Amino acid sequence: MNKLRILDCTLRDGGLTNNFFFDDSFVRDLYRTNVEAGVAYMEMGYRASRDVFKESDFGKWKFCDEEVIREIVGDNPTQMKLSVMADVGRTNFERDILPKKDSVLDMIRIATYSHTIDEAIDAVEHCHNLGYETTVNIMAISNDAQQTIASVLEKLAASSVDVVYLVDSFGAFYPHQVAALSRQYAEAVLPEGKQVGIHAHNNQQLAFANTIEGMRNGVSLLDVTINGLGRGAGNCSAELLAGYLMGQGVPCKQEPLIRFIEKHMLALKEEGVVWGYDIPYLLTGQGNHHPSKAIEFIKDCRTQYTDLLRELAVQ
Amino acid sequence: MNKLRILDCTLRDGGLTNNFFFDDSFVRDLYRTNVEAGVAYMEMGYRASRDVFKESDFGKWKFCDEEVIREIVGDNPTQMKLSVMADVGRTNFERDILPKKDSVLDMIRIATYSHTIDEAIDAVEHCHNLGYETTVNIMAISNDAQQTIASVLEKLAASSVDVVYLVDSFGAFYPHQVAALSRQYAEAVLPEGKQVGIHAHNNQQLAFANTIEGMRNGVSLLDVTINGLGRGAGNCSAELLAGYLMGQGVPCKQEPLIRFIEKHMLALKEEGVVWGYDIPYLLTGQGNHHPSKAIEFIKDCRTQYTDLLRELAVQ
Repeated sequence: MNKLRILDCTLRDGGLTNNFFFDDSFVRDLYRTNVEAGVAYMEMGYRASRDVFKESDFGKWKFCDEEVIREIVGDNPTQMKLSVMADVGRTNFERDILPKKDSVLDMIRIATYSHTIDEAIDAVEHCHNLGYETTVNIMAISNDAQQTIASVLEKLAASSVDVVYLVDSFGAFYPHQVAALSRQYAEAVLPEGKQVGIHAHNNQQLAFANTIEGMRNGVSLLDVTINGLGRGAGNCSAELLAGYLMGQGVPCKQEPLIRFIEKHMLALKEEGVVWGYDIPYLLTGQGNHHPSKAIEFIKDCRTQYTDLLRELAVQ
Repeated sequence: MNKLRILDCTLRDGGLTNNFFFDDSFVRDLYRTNVEAGVAYMEMGYRASRDVFKESDFGKWKFCDEEVIREIVGDNPTQMKLSVMADVGRTNFERDILPKKDSVLDMIRIATYSHTIDEAIDAVEHCHNLGYETTVNIMAISNDAQQTIASVLEKLAASSVDVVYLVDSFGAFYPHQVAALSRQYAEAVLPEGKQVGIHAHNNQQLAFANTIEGMRNGVSLLDVTINGLGRGAGNCSAELLAGYLMGQGVPCKQEPLIRFIEKHMLALKEEGVVWGYDIPYLLTGQGNHHPSKAIEFIKDCRTQYTDLLRELAVQ
């Protein structure tokens, strides 16, 4: 059985709530906190292309330039590894990913839909050849047919990827579905020496439960964000998972995470950053819709939930 | 397999957040909503003893006098049944429970600790002889040894009780523990023609997941509150469970619940009633402590979570 490891994507998924405008003290404390908590990987943000996104619209963690990361972590003299996420079609892999020997990063996580899996695998091979660990995070699979998922997993099993991610983009899955999918992913890629990761969303208050369910069915790399910070309903909370894992004898610490929440997450909420379970996210999640309509609804300060129900029904 | 049925305890568990001061329009709309949503049982509140609780400290749903209930439901000309909760030691069963033929209530739910199970069973037999359906809700079992639970279940199996409740008072259980306990409860009482119920708390964002897990392991009576209203971190949300059950082909409706939230729960929040997942509840839940310290902490507007961690550690 693969060792259970936590990946913190507070900056990356959390950046979707504030366009990546985190101040340096937040990022610096987050880095220290994750090291202290025994987090295996910290994701610094996206390595997005400036050809696709306008630089002035975003904070620096949208682009994660090498020197920006080094300002926080130096040469990263810790056990914790660092990753960035790169979306197929939104990252210039040839231009913007340095050879591993010139980078403080350890892992490139490649996010894709199933229909762009071939481009994702090209990106994997490119990054692998540059010397990085790689993951492929297949998004929105709650819209994919079983045979589509099976065919994507077969391709990934034959690739150089290190970790294949089960992603519940819409927060649509129930634990028994996560269990079945985790087993499917594990059976497809574990025999090839790869691992399975899980990235859950909290639309139905199931992000933590689904993460545990994944663990119990072959998943070993576990995505969290502190206090669940993340787009819409947010993610599996680091503090919940750390407490659980400590009880299972996994070496990690909850207390630094609680301290970080006390110091930084309350301030973020006071600044007006909004995330976490709410009725509109339940409605998109349970209906297997992208959360965008719910995010817009909440941003517009609307509370006529039954109108949203009707709008989603006619989509 | 027993038919899955929803029990709404919004007034009863929710009453712990506002000392049962619900206005009549809230209660009347809740009653209509539950009927429309296909809820099987609606709990009107506690049938507490005025010898134990001072009447002026509480709203009328703490005592649930027969005429108070009838003001809302008349003779309850619906398919939905009505219940009250009665705590061992806090209800005068002899004096305050009318014969069933004189009451609009259908079920008395008896809450007890394992060490008062004999008194609970006396209360069951009394209420059963008066003509009611009964449940026994064994609280705080996360503090009980396995053999204690086994012995309590054996006594209940031999009693007249109709439903035995698995109660996660502290929000301490993980889904795999709920699965094992549900099977234990089911094996002990299902052969005697009884049913198992579940009452989950949301300290670890697991109330919904644990309720589903119970269902998948022999539990058929499912406690919810609308929007999760309830003491501390609150309960399994009616709207989450209804959406799930609809997907499983169980005849119930989510839309009336969403409408009720829109109309009443947002107003309750604006009035300053506080409930739902928060860090202090995680800390008491995961540590298997009663939520009282977390409730007090939040009431005092404290946010030094690490202090609470330390206070709980020395308990």
